[in-house]
Amino acid sequence: MKSDGRAFDIKRRTIISGLALLPSLGQTLFPSFARAQGSQPTPLASWNDGPAKQAIIDFVHATTDQTSPRFVPAEDRVATFDQDGTLWVEQPMYTQVVYCLDRVPVVVAQKPELKNREPFKTVLSGNREAMAKLSLRDLEEILFATLTGMPVEVFDAEAKKWIETAEHPRWKRLYTELTYQPMLEVLQYMRANGYRTYIVTGGGQDFVRVYAQQVYGIPPEQVVGTASGTNFGYGKDGKPFLTKDPKLLLNDNNAGKPEGIHLEIGRRPNAAFGNSTGDRQMLEYTGAGGGARLMMLVLHDDTQREYAYGPAQGLPDTKVGTFTQALYDEAKKNSWTVISMKNDWKRVFAFD
Amino acid sequence: MKSDGRAFDIKRRTIISGLALLPSLGQTLFPSFARAQGSQPTPLASWNDGPAKQAIIDFVHATTDQTSPRFVPAEDRVATFDQDGTLWVEQPMYTQVVYCLDRVPVVVAQKPELKNREPFKTVLSGNREAMAKLSLRDLEEILFATLTGMPVEVFDAEAKKWIETAEHPRWKRLYTELTYQPMLEVLQYMRANGYRTYIVTGGGQDFVRVYAQQVYGIPPEQVVGTASGTNFGYGKDGKPFLTKDPKLLLNDNNAGKPEGIHLEIGRRPNAAFGNSTGDRQMLEYTGAGGGARLMMLVLHDDTQREYAYGPAQGLPDTKVGTFTQALYDEAKKNSWTVISMKNDWKRVFAFD
Repeated sequence: MKSDGRAFDIKRRTIISGLALLPSLGQTLFPSFARAQGSQPTPLASWNDGPAKQAIIDFVHATTDQTSPRFVPAEDRVATFDQDGTLWVEQPMYTQVVYCLDRVPVVVAQKPELKNREPFKTVLSGNREAMAKLSLRDLEEILFATLTGMPVEVFDAEAKKWIETAEHPRWKRLYTELTYQPMLEVLQYMRANGYRTYIVTGGGQDFVRVYAQQVYGIPPEQVVGTASGTNFGYGKDGKPFLTKDPKLLLNDNNAGKPEGIHLEIGRRPNAAFGNSTGDRQMLEYTGAGGGARLMMLVLHDDTQREYAYGPAQGLPDTKVGTFTQALYDEAKKNSWTVISMKNDWKRVFAFD
Repeated sequence: MKSDGRAFDIKRRTIISGLALLPSLGQTLFPSFARAQGSQPTPLASWNDGPAKQAIIDFVHATTDQTSPRFVPAEDRVATFDQDGTLWVEQPMYTQVVYCLDRVPVVVAQKPELKNREPFKTVLSGNREAMAKLSLRDLEEILFATLTGMPVEVFDAEAKKWIETAEHPRWKRLYTELTYQPMLEVLQYMRANGYRTYIVTGGGQDFVRVYAQQVYGIPPEQVVGTASGTNFGYGKDGKPFLTKDPKLLLNDNNAGKPEGIHLEIGRRPNAAFGNSTGDRQMLEYTGAGGGARLMMLVLHDDTQREYAYGPAQGLPDTKVGTFTQALYDEAKKNSWTVISMKNDWKRVFAFD
């Protein structure tokens, strides 16, 4: 939209104006241009044909075809995506929790009085069995100690450094490589059709914003997540800065998801994607609007390529990403689409 | 961005591809197209030539010219605007406060027990002198009683109905007509140059979102304001909805402005516009970033066409929109630009 970009665009347009009369030649010579102008050559390429893929395509067609009774003007198109278990791997532990545990030694070095205090002592011991037994309250204490108390810029730099190097224990790859290729294609497909794609995550808003643009193509202002407040203050040099405050402003899980959507977006989404009971209210809220609606849940039923968990298929439930039988029943009752990772996805990761 | 729009765009482009080689003819035949491609024919038409107008133009050129050392990529361009006193009239009372006072009879009709309780009794009396003496605490009670407790949709409908009919006592015109034409031109000019324009207001986020798109061309997700929480729940029909909760989440004034910007935008603005001490921290925060920065303050010094208030020019200070001498001094010290309504604006309102 900037004037220079436009000037460049006009020049490029002038140059290719002859070629534009020969669309096929234009496409051969300028494949990226052709792709930018029309729809993707093969949208959702990593999806098997089936009801899940069809539901996405039908929804997009119904809401972007101006002759459709369910047409939605471009400025009103909003799609929200949970992150953990919906856009990337959440097992055996939420990535952000791994980050917080990794940060404990640094925090203890800065505050030695924590060294012999629980839950820090247990985390420092490295005893995985003991760590697995930490309570939710213990975990919260670790999260606050490692995610708050520092200037926003310091946190951003630390998290960025970590996310660019930390590896998942199973794949020995960066966490950011463990995004689901089919879901990245959904993000691209929705955006190519005028949808603004938002992440609405139980994870920390500031944490996810550090890498969302690079990993998902989603800018910071389109990441809604669990958020602590910040405190505005001045440094010794008089320069103002924001410090991350331990006061929780928004717990962006369960009912907190529609509440967070109202706070930061102010529109009801037309489409919502999740994978657990934490996403239930977001899907219900999305479904309660008029016109075309798309609600989808990723079911993890693929031990081979990823994980299988949740009781929907008689699989053992786990601590994270709870896809309960009740949620499965609600999905069926409300005609939400359940995505079978095993059956609907040709491949799970880009490196598959 | 939607596929249909693109298809149309391609056709149009093919048709005009010949004309594109003759830019001046193209502009004559397709004025709107020409405008869409280049800059506005006369940006900032309601501004007198002078340092304020020049500061805006210089900033936009410096940040959008790819050869400029202070170039800012389009995706990073953010400009924030206070509303009351910066985009529209705030005297003799903030418009939203007028709304809340107008709503008191309705709230009392629903809750008769409030009828003989202060501050509601005073508001119902209609005694303007007594109302002017209400404390800040009284006012807060009125705000919570009239702005919270109802479903979001009910609030939106009520506020919309009011804003479409209520008139300002001096001009006998809709409040939405009392926006400053020069500032509407700044919004348009910034957007035409790739800036995303945000309102960052001490006013209620939900209230301003009701009319921001129509009045300022600013969508709900680009309105940051004082915000109460919402509560997700279910109606008797099982349908989920959000109720406006009296719990204050964000007081978007003073330090709350940069804090709100971090919460809902997650980027430091490149440019910020305000008119009072409530905007000070937003301008300081904006100014603390690197590269080109634009900080501007509207000074109300025009009794004839609008109002004159604030002690900067020896004028009496008022309850709202406090432009203190200290703020004026800080502006001068930091090279913020003070906009003189009297000298910098050719006209104040569109109807002038």
